[in-house]
Amino acid sequence: MKSLSEKAALNLDAVRKNKPLIHNITNYVVMNYTANALLAMGASPVMAHAPNEVEQMVSFAGSLVLNIGTLTDDWIDSMIKAGKKATALKTPIILDPVGSGATSLRTDSAKKIINETKISVIRGNASEILSLKKSDSKTKGVDSIHNVEDASDAAKLLAGELQTTLAITGPVDLVTDGDRTVRVSNGHPLMACVTGTGCTATAAIGAFLAVDNDPFSAAATALAFFGMAGEIAGKKAQAPGSFMIKMLDALYLLTPEKLQSGCQIKE
Amino acid sequence: MKSLSEKAALNLDAVRKNKPLIHNITNYVVMNYTANALLAMGASPVMAHAPNEVEQMVSFAGSLVLNIGTLTDDWIDSMIKAGKKATALKTPIILDPVGSGATSLRTDSAKKIINETKISVIRGNASEILSLKKSDSKTKGVDSIHNVEDASDAAKLLAGELQTTLAITGPVDLVTDGDRTVRVSNGHPLMACVTGTGCTATAAIGAFLAVDNDPFSAAATALAFFGMAGEIAGKKAQAPGSFMIKMLDALYLLTPEKLQSGCQIKE
Amino acid sequence: MKSLSEKAALNLDAVRKNKPLIHNITNYVVMNYTANALLAMGASPVMAHAPNEVEQMVSFAGSLVLNIGTLTDDWIDSMIKAGKKATALKTPIILDPVGSGATSLRTDSAKKIINETKISVIRGNASEILSLKKSDSKTKGVDSIHNVEDASDAAKLLAGELQTTLAITGPVDLVTDGDRTVRVSNGHPLMACVTGTGCTATAAIGAFLAVDNDPFSAAATALAFFGMAGEIAGKKAQAPGSFMIKMLDALYLLTPEKLQSGCQIKE
Repeated sequence: MKSLSEKAALNLDAVRKNKPLIHNITNYVVMNYTANALLAMGASPVMAHAPNEVEQMVSFAGSLVLNIGTLTDDWIDSMIKAGKKATALKTPIILDPVGSGATSLRTDSAKKIINETKISVIRGNASEILSLKKSDSKTKGVDSIHNVEDASDAAKLLAGELQTTLAITGPVDLVTDGDRTVRVSNGHPLMACVTGTGCTATAAIGAFLAVDNDPFSAAATALAFFGMAGEIAGKKAQAPGSFMIKMLDALYLLTPEKLQSGCQIKE
Repeated sequence: MKSLSEKAALNLDAVRKNKPLIHNITNYVVMNYTANALLAMGASPVMAHAPNEVEQMVSFAGSLVLNIGTLTDDWIDSMIKAGKKATALKTPIILDPVGSGATSLRTDSAKKIINETKISVIRGNASEILSLKKSDSKTKGVDSIHNVEDASDAAKLLAGELQTTLAITGPVDLVTDGDRTVRVSNGHPLMACVTGTGCTATAAIGAFLAVDNDPFSAAATALAFFGMAGEIAGKKAQAPGSFMIKMLDALYLLTPEKLQSGCQIKE
Repeated sequence: MKSLSEKAALNLDAVRKNKPLIHNITNYVVMNYTANALLAMGASPVMAHAPNEVEQMVSFAGSLVLNIGTLTDDWIDSMIKAGKKATALKTPIILDPVGSGATSLRTDSAKKIINETKISVIRGNASEILSLKKSDSKTKGVDSIHNVEDASDAAKLLAGELQTTLAITGPVDLVTDGDRTVRVSNGHPLMACVTGTGCTATAAIGAFLAVDNDPFSAAATALAFFGMAGEIAGKKAQAPGSFMIKMLDALYLLTPEKLQSGCQIKE
């Protein structure tokens, strides 16, 4: 798909040139790695979660990244406060519903954020994403979903129901806004051996959302970029420690030109 | 000791095959490195501390890791809540009493956790472990304890008093359940130059506890595994930054066969 | 400036020999990297923020590092509690007012800490530092400040007003206590591509403050040391992931002798 490969290069170039401020309210585990990944790719990360600060902070931001990985009620409240302000300002929001479907707190909190704010993209694995369906949803339950392919039809329906773009990551990523659907096959198996790879992919989409008005193309191109950085790292490292460091290097060194030629985005 | 070397290989193999979920309520400093170490060795880490989630989360887990490194009262409450549930479910718990003996909050919190839950293993340095004795204990005070050797007799007595397995780490590690005692001499001096090495050893024991019903052998074999990863890293790195990365690599690359032949566990 | 180069070597040597305990109340993003940097350079870091612990913990410390990067009101309360105790004990305090000037919560919190405790050094970028002026200050507003050179006169005045040492970092660092002013030109461009480099420079100054009674020379020499570690890392790494690891290595490997000969501190 020519246009999305070109768009990937343009988006990466725009992130490097504009250095958008990405406001993250994210989990403790990945804060450092996410911030380093955003810096490496050319964006400007800020982590801020105080209830008496998030509205002011998000007003400076190009996008808002919400991640429930180490959630507590007070953090969810701050996420919703920031999310409402972002919604009012038409600042794009990406949600990472870490562990939704695993515990009720996570499922309920993710749904609450979705209901009370306007989310541009939700990124997660198949179980997390499909746990977000409404109780009266036509979407199939997660029990029958085993991989991205199985999840495809359910995801298209769910994207329509939630009126958002869904990015389901796995060995092959699926991105759909209900109308359009693509698969992104960039990536490397060692990405699954580093904590917060998914969360960092979410942050990368956040950076692309800040420079691309179309959440669908922002998500697909960011995942291609992120996956291609993984491929480069995978050529230089045989184990997860070295891999996570080479991945940061690749996010910094990968050029828009190489990204355009290496993009694996297909309808 | 033939049986523990063999057991080490079997435990590592079982972690790699079963990928047990390890529920960590741990400190901010080491969350990322601990999660990466658990992933690298083949386990599946989750960090979750919300009071309205920990009971549900721990019910899915193969073991529970409690670490008081950046404690506050509300986190201790969550640890005890999760610990009581784990106790009821007979899910093994490992406690890392970081800084116990240094401040009253730490000593009191560690003792509270020990009193209110069933702890399978406690891992710490000599001062931390020996600070846990009860006020009417026969155990000698920490003032007279200078190293693992000095701590040996006191530790055996204390393990009996607390009815748990104690893992005292240092240049040579001591593991005792009161009846049985071994020393593990795998390791490398650079391990002391990386933050959270001890905390990560604790998490590694947590992973082995999920596949080994005997806390004593789980602790001894996990420390041999972790120390041997340090030895491998120490051959490839001369300074702590590179060392911490090579250590993650080694946790991933070390095979059960090599572990069995390199284990340094002695009575 | 011969004396400061010599002082740099002496300070580094003293940190390595005395291994001062550095009590950090800092942000979630940099806790791990900061702790590793302090360990690598030879200090002994502890992170502790519980309101019912900070006074006891800081009483053991050689210095106190306060960093408002992921502040909330309760963390600021703990910082002030620890800061008051440190002030009473004449233990030096360094403040990193991350994001001061960007949001009112950050500006107000930084000023509150400054008002209620005795701060030996404040380290930040030009905007952060100059946002700390009092409302009736003679210091120019930040709007007109574009770099360290522009900030120089304003900083000297502000250091006098606040009766503290200011360390403004950038491509060239400026250190002033109102009377004395030096510029430190050690460093490397990749330092700006790693999250928490500034926060870690703050922690390094914290370590030097624990062995040097003069906050002005502690700040200048620590920045030369930290910048020179960056130079060494920059010779070995071309991208931020590898750079951040080589930087930790350099903090460990750099000798007092090499530091003395490579120091770039000028009046």
